[in-house]
Amino acid sequence: MSEQSPLDLAEGDPFGPHNLPYGVFTTADEPERRRLGVRIGNHVLDAGAAALALGSPYADLLAQPDLGPLLAAGRTAWRDVRRALTAWVTVPAHRPDIEPLLHPVGSVTMHLPYEVADYVDFYASENHATNVGRIFRPDGDALTPNWKHLPIGYHGRAGTIVVSGTDVARPSGQRKAPADAAPVFGPSVKLDIEAEVGFLVGTPSQLGTPVPLDSFRDHVFGLFLLNDWSARDVQAWEYVPLGPFLGKSFATSVSAWVTPLEALDAARTAPPARDVPLLPYLDDAAEEEPGGFDLRISVAINGTVVAEPPFASMYWTAAQQLAHMTVNGASLRTGDVYGSGTVSGPEVHQRGSLLELTWNGRDPIDLPGGKRTFLEDGDEVTLTAWAPGPDGVRVGLGEVTGRIVPAP
Amino acid sequence: MSEQSPLDLAEGDPFGPHNLPYGVFTTADEPERRRLGVRIGNHVLDAGAAALALGSPYADLLAQPDLGPLLAAGRTAWRDVRRALTAWVTVPAHRPDIEPLLHPVGSVTMHLPYEVADYVDFYASENHATNVGRIFRPDGDALTPNWKHLPIGYHGRAGTIVVSGTDVARPSGQRKAPADAAPVFGPSVKLDIEAEVGFLVGTPSQLGTPVPLDSFRDHVFGLFLLNDWSARDVQAWEYVPLGPFLGKSFATSVSAWVTPLEALDAARTAPPARDVPLLPYLDDAAEEEPGGFDLRISVAINGTVVAEPPFASMYWTAAQQLAHMTVNGASLRTGDVYGSGTVSGPEVHQRGSLLELTWNGRDPIDLPGGKRTFLEDGDEVTLTAWAPGPDGVRVGLGEVTGRIVPAP
Repeated sequence: MSEQSPLDLAEGDPFGPHNLPYGVFTTADEPERRRLGVRIGNHVLDAGAAALALGSPYADLLAQPDLGPLLAAGRTAWRDVRRALTAWVTVPAHRPDIEPLLHPVGSVTMHLPYEVADYVDFYASENHATNVGRIFRPDGDALTPNWKHLPIGYHGRAGTIVVSGTDVARPSGQRKAPADAAPVFGPSVKLDIEAEVGFLVGTPSQLGTPVPLDSFRDHVFGLFLLNDWSARDVQAWEYVPLGPFLGKSFATSVSAWVTPLEALDAARTAPPARDVPLLPYLDDAAEEEPGGFDLRISVAINGTVVAEPPFASMYWTAAQQLAHMTVNGASLRTGDVYGSGTVSGPEVHQRGSLLELTWNGRDPIDLPGGKRTFLEDGDEVTLTAWAPGPDGVRVGLGEVTGRIVPAP
Repeated sequence: MSEQSPLDLAEGDPFGPHNLPYGVFTTADEPERRRLGVRIGNHVLDAGAAALALGSPYADLLAQPDLGPLLAAGRTAWRDVRRALTAWVTVPAHRPDIEPLLHPVGSVTMHLPYEVADYVDFYASENHATNVGRIFRPDGDALTPNWKHLPIGYHGRAGTIVVSGTDVARPSGQRKAPADAAPVFGPSVKLDIEAEVGFLVGTPSQLGTPVPLDSFRDHVFGLFLLNDWSARDVQAWEYVPLGPFLGKSFATSVSAWVTPLEALDAARTAPPARDVPLLPYLDDAAEEEPGGFDLRISVAINGTVVAEPPFASMYWTAAQQLAHMTVNGASLRTGDVYGSGTVSGPEVHQRGSLLELTWNGRDPIDLPGGKRTFLEDGDEVTLTAWAPGPDGVRVGLGEVTGRIVPAP
């Protein structure tokens, strides 16, 4: 009886050859040598070594310490490289070359696989925006008048995007309850999760040239889970009039794995019906490809699932966000990241933040270790997700996890 | 009678050896070879070539295509390199080596001298914030309740920071007057200037470790003039609740010259008296060095000075902004840029934006070519400034200029 190959996956493995997300890893033997990896089942293929072993023309893109060169190579290269990788992990004749280049996922260290250029965060879930409006502005309309006319977004801090598994220190800052005479300073007492999906720009654009809706796939390489940690007390005091700043900038966690858009063709889905006519640059009614992605997200705290936000419910699509972000001529760079905004569905158990799940602390949720309003030191938050793939198989998204450590 | 040396400057030249700002240039002969330059009078010294010619230990920092290595080298290196440069342009024995390495400023092309990491923009002028509050929120208090407790700021787009001299295309976007039923799309009709001072971070900091007030000079290398172009109509419609986005992200112009903080020791000045007690991390009453900079800015449109904003009037200092930006543990990277916010003094002719100068278009200003409410296509905006230097001589800041071209 021969030993089983790591390439012989169980039927329906969510990280099968239909998926092939990209990441960057190091091994214990060579902790300084970052390498591009492709996940297959519970293993990481050293993609650069495979390209060199097989004499691939894509060695220049794959034998690299990060995703930068592949991202910048553009959509045709993305397709061709993916085809090559698919062959390497599926064609039996390649097994003698490929099998020695597979590392168990648990044996390697994953790193942020790209250098972040600019980071933008959107606010694209109608359910989330409505909940937040009701909580923070109880006397006004839940949605601001612009909300259904444009995908609201703002720039975040690119330099504090960290890879899944990085501890997150509780931030300190100013907060002031409405009844207090003056602000106080200290560790945040309302530290929260925001379950989001991040999009990674590969192909840059020229300053002055908008990127239309139908060019989305020419520029965006892939997506990943993102946790936009938020200190709600800091945010509430600072955000009028120029938006969130220190309430968000201390850390944003992203998955170590980037799922190429090509793996998600079966997950494309129409966004919700729009209530107001959209300006032409945002009107996607006539787009060939549906703008949404049917991603089923789970949010767990210390292993207990607290929410299951459906990404298919997002009002604004990633293509609309890209078109809006560039309609004033702003250019894109390789490595730009943009987040969808918190994903919340219409049901209570579909809300992607503790702010919403506990209604700003009014309704604590039960966990095996005790009740929670916001995050406590030691809490570990994990986002996972899957999407429908070809032939009924699931496409797994790489998890994003982070543990809260006490304020320094 | 011998030919005069470019190093024989007129008495009181604002770009004398007491100044020595840094930039990056190319020559017509070698348009692809970017080199670090230091301005002396109306010439640029090829600093890397000088270091090599003189056998300087700083050749590794100066013979570079941008400021990155010098910025990352830290404060002691900044001081030592500046001392060496001062000797090179002042000690007569060095003239035979130095003079051949001087290029007339008008003969070279200047480039953005650093790679921008994150870009943050503040809102630190009490006069500006009060004017904007009165214009945009006439029914409320001019200053939001947080304004005197923390330096309000937000992240801007790092990828669209452009060097002085770059044309700026009029951005298009959504706007909606309060009386309109729905937004319209088109080129901005309220394109504006914001006269600001930018600060450039050299030494990075660790995630989780705030930078206290008295570490400002360990991290910040220098400053420069910055024009934060703003489409007021786009901004007014989009900015509630998450702050400015497309109204700002199309372009931010910066000077080609970075003035090291060491050239501005004589310009340090105490900020205005504070009206409310500050939390300890922002309280600079006991700081050894006064937190302000006495920079006298001029704003010109097509050569006519329209405003003279005094930077000494800023309520929040650059050290306070840095302390605030990092107090939640957010890290700094080499190349981080932060803007002061529009500089406006108490007098009408000291206002650093057309929004304020024309009171949102109500009171046009007269220019030789006709009246202006906001910028017209073809308008060229130039910011210049000087500061008091040693022995009564002025320190010139490098100008920042940009011309508005029609929407594409």
